Amino acid sequence: MSTIETASPGKTRVGFIGLGVMGKAMARNVLKAGFELAVYNRSRPAVEELLREGAVEGGSPAGIARRSDMVMLCLPDTPDVEAVLFGENGVAEAARPGLVVIDTSTISASATRAFGARLAERGVELIDCPVSGGPKGAIDGTLSCMLGGSEAAIAAAMPLLEAIGSKHVHLGPTGAGQLVKSCNQLVIAATLAGVCEAVALCRSAGVDASKMREALLGGSAQSFVLQNHAKRLLDATLAPGFRSSLMLKDLKLAIEAGRAGGVFMPTTALAAQLFTALCNSGRKDLDTASLGLLVQELSGLPIQQEEERT
Amino acid sequence: MSTIETASPGKTRVGFIGLGVMGKAMARNVLKAGFELAVYNRSRPAVEELLREGAVEGGSPAGIARRSDMVMLCLPDTPDVEAVLFGENGVAEAARPGLVVIDTSTISASATRAFGARLAERGVELIDCPVSGGPKGAIDGTLSCMLGGSEAAIAAAMPLLEAIGSKHVHLGPTGAGQLVKSCNQLVIAATLAGVCEAVALCRSAGVDASKMREALLGGSAQSFVLQNHAKRLLDATLAPGFRSSLMLKDLKLAIEAGRAGGVFMPTTALAAQLFTALCNSGRKDLDTASLGLLVQELSGLPIQQEEERT
Repeated sequence: MSTIETASPGKTRVGFIGLGVMGKAMARNVLKAGFELAVYNRSRPAVEELLREGAVEGGSPAGIARRSDMVMLCLPDTPDVEAVLFGENGVAEAARPGLVVIDTSTISASATRAFGARLAERGVELIDCPVSGGPKGAIDGTLSCMLGGSEAAIAAAMPLLEAIGSKHVHLGPTGAGQLVKSCNQLVIAATLAGVCEAVALCRSAGVDASKMREALLGGSAQSFVLQNHAKRLLDATLAPGFRSSLMLKDLKLAIEAGRAGGVFMPTTALAAQLFTALCNSGRKDLDTASLGLLVQELSGLPIQQEEERT
Repeated sequence: MSTIETASPGKTRVGFIGLGVMGKAMARNVLKAGFELAVYNRSRPAVEELLREGAVEGGSPAGIARRSDMVMLCLPDTPDVEAVLFGENGVAEAARPGLVVIDTSTISASATRAFGARLAERGVELIDCPVSGGPKGAIDGTLSCMLGGSEAAIAAAMPLLEAIGSKHVHLGPTGAGQLVKSCNQLVIAATLAGVCEAVALCRSAGVDASKMREALLGGSAQSFVLQNHAKRLLDATLAPGFRSSLMLKDLKLAIEAGRAGGVFMPTTALAAQLFTALCNSGRKDLDTASLGLLVQELSGLPIQQEEERT
């Protein structure tokens, strides 16, 4: 395996594939950190935007790979990553030994391991780097990065990873980042499910749910979800944020990851069922906090009028 | 209804019934705040201890009520509170108009409402004041107090409540405190169930669960439970803390509270089932974090040797 040079602004050529809300914000921070940046995205507007800010045109995933030392991906799901890596005009076609691919998407841990093995045959290192912190963390460059990959590749990529996030934990070999992202998502979903039931219980009993939230924030039930998601639910500001449909995808990934090892995950399974029902109730594009509306509905409670405000 | 005098150290005579781990610590803080204190407990050692520190003997719940302006209770469950209030030599026998009863136990919200109505017939006010913060919060006087009762009674009792806790939220009429305590417990249990599955998922995949915890603490999955319960699980320090059997009791109370209003609470129901299995697995007297051991066991994972250390 060839030695990987440590990423360095003004020297390392970076490519970025996938310029959605998260990807565009991350790519912008890579530019701001002084890296030369080539971009590719299926739809044009985000590309144009970054070209105006100093990025150059990549043309295709293969084009990106040809002209880059490190390639970052931010894509919706496992098949998207597979297509960009191994499809026609994909990264693998143009890959050369020493190239590092950093995948910030949230996708299957087992597929990630398989992709890593296929890329390794070409001397390409795959780092999985799913992130937590949402659009705000992506914009502020304060994402929490869950890293899987070789010690050497991650050390070399660190200056680049520091452009997008403020917390970096190396969790193990390729795939370990995705596994821990699954943990992150299932813990959020379980907490949120509990919080939504607590809100419904209060509303049913005529107790002010925002006072309940205030009381619970002072004790052992305190969480980021109670602080933020519950507030969004109580204020009925349910524009995402993080879409229910993406949480459902992530919970399915967690279940898939657990199935391989026969892990007992009834809470995750229930959460996935609740998010299935939530998406089926017409709320797939609302924030995950909208789970509270479904729980209230299934509790026979009148739904807050404010849902219209989203 | 007679006017209630505001509690004042050196003047207000306080009684305390139920000197378990939590009750003894709270009673001690009442003494330290300068209140005259009479105590009663079924078993003697805790009574003797507090007598040595300056409390006086109450003799019985009725004896306590006879010589007190405000009576605090800290008892295991609903039937215990009922017996102390309305049984032979109970508080009600000796109660006079203007007496305030403050119940810090975690018991049924509906029973609390009924007890409040029965006491009101005698001119006695019942404040429900379940607490969160555990033995440490009780010792430090930093409990979070979830208050149900009349505005006037709670205002009058506040100097006394400030001796035991640092956060006080008035949630509504008598019973509202218990309802919100149910919310507190079900949110903790749901979060913990998710955290335990995340730990099992990591162990199954060979990923270091303490690194997972570290990564998650930096993002949206952050919680008191991930900070504290997960650490206890990973360190295998599973002496309570808070006993699994008490959590099971509390989840049953939450389900009872929800049933009255037809609240949809599948996550709470699942958590109660998990705690049922946990208690049946010989861990009823271990900390709630021992749920992680059951989840690992049911995942076919070798259980940490350290369980012996508890």
